[in-house]
Amino acid sequence: MTAKTPEERIADLGLTLPPPARAVANYVPWVITGNLVMTSGNLPWRDGKLAYVGKIGREISGEDGYKSCQLSCVNAVAQIKQAVGELSKVKRIVRLEGVLGVDDAFKEHPKCLDGASDLINNAFGREGPPRPHDLHQPGDAARLHVARGPVRGD
Amino acid sequence: MTAKTPEERIADLGLTLPPPARAVANYVPWVITGNLVMTSGNLPWRDGKLAYVGKIGREISGEDGYKSCQLSCVNAVAQIKQAVGELSKVKRIVRLEGVLGVDDAFKEHPKCLDGASDLINNAFGREGPPRPHDLHQPGDAARLHVARGPVRGD
Amino acid sequence: MTAKTPEERIADLGLTLPPPARAVANYVPWVITGNLVMTSGNLPWRDGKLAYVGKIGREISGEDGYKSCQLSCVNAVAQIKQAVGELSKVKRIVRLEGVLGVDDAFKEHPKCLDGASDLINNAFGREGPPRPHDLHQPGDAARLHVARGPVRGD
Repeated sequence: MTAKTPEERIADLGLTLPPPARAVANYVPWVITGNLVMTSGNLPWRDGKLAYVGKIGREISGEDGYKSCQLSCVNAVAQIKQAVGELSKVKRIVRLEGVLGVDDAFKEHPKCLDGASDLINNAFGREGPPRPHDLHQPGDAARLHVARGPVRGD
Repeated sequence: MTAKTPEERIADLGLTLPPPARAVANYVPWVITGNLVMTSGNLPWRDGKLAYVGKIGREISGEDGYKSCQLSCVNAVAQIKQAVGELSKVKRIVRLEGVLGVDDAFKEHPKCLDGASDLINNAFGREGPPRPHDLHQPGDAARLHVARGPVRGD
Repeated sequence: MTAKTPEERIADLGLTLPPPARAVANYVPWVITGNLVMTSGNLPWRDGKLAYVGKIGREISGEDGYKSCQLSCVNAVAQIKQAVGELSKVKRIVRLEGVLGVDDAFKEHPKCLDGASDLINNAFGREGPPRPHDLHQPGDAARLHVARGPVRGD
């Protein structure tokens, strides 16, 4: 039996890698430098629309916050796939950054960001990437995530 | 005809690379590691003073927010020049981070950060760097940007 | 006379490297990629408890904010030591990120983050790492820091 590819493991979760989202301003979605893929921020795009809008803990639930982070990460993984061709070329994801729009009283944003970590763990293996910060911020800011990984051979 | 240098393209925009700003606390402005230049945060310094103070969408306009990001980026590019000597040694800018102080109701901060992206695009060519996050934050925080690029040969 | 190790210099400051803190969610504390150690966010843990809780400038003083950043950085250095074995293998710290929970009226967060910079300067030599941003954010967010450094030979 052959080990499943990351693409197959993502499909097993019932998730689909979308075409990479277009940038919302004047920047490219990813760059390869050395053995690293640097991705841009990713929002919870589904079929060209933001699937989750509003603040976690106010307009949307913590559970939907988890799903929103998962979906943003799916979009990030789609960028990485576009960058490297096949996800099996990714040796590991080395950094995950999250910025969450949460109500001031909401304290469970690390659990929401697990939506992204769990997806990465499932797709690429059991070692989730370090998370330098789980930011939350004012305004109706969308959930936004960055994931990046060295191409195999790093 | 010889292609213009990044320095010449910046001058064509009517912009001047200042002497790199002094750190506002106990840190160095840049470090080279491997083929990467890591810069510190940069504020919209002009002639030793912050040219834009206040929140975008409240005390200052979105248009000035764009200019503030452009000016912060000019300061970041000055750091990179100090690090590598000539900007033509920079192969590309691989990451741009922005933190903007905006009014909660202001939603156009990605367009403001284009002030930095557009400068980079103009100076270094037509491929803007990925932007992991366009943060906005409370308080009277200054606009702050990070740009970094691998030295040619990366 | 032999130069002191970073561990000895940290002990000279009266500080102790703790066992690395467990992640508060589904992620690993550090990853080595190429010559870089990427660490996760670090909170001001002491003996398994957060030593500083609340907003700087409101519940806790600016002086304690400095100490909180120092302690968070001690925890980050403990992660790096776990990653590389002996801190003398670290060539330099190349990036320090700070996220501080501060009162909106508090403007001295760069000075607070010096608690981390000063520790790094003392432990690893006199060149503090670049600081891309000194974020502050709403809510009762804990102080959180990231430090990372290339392994010697970078």
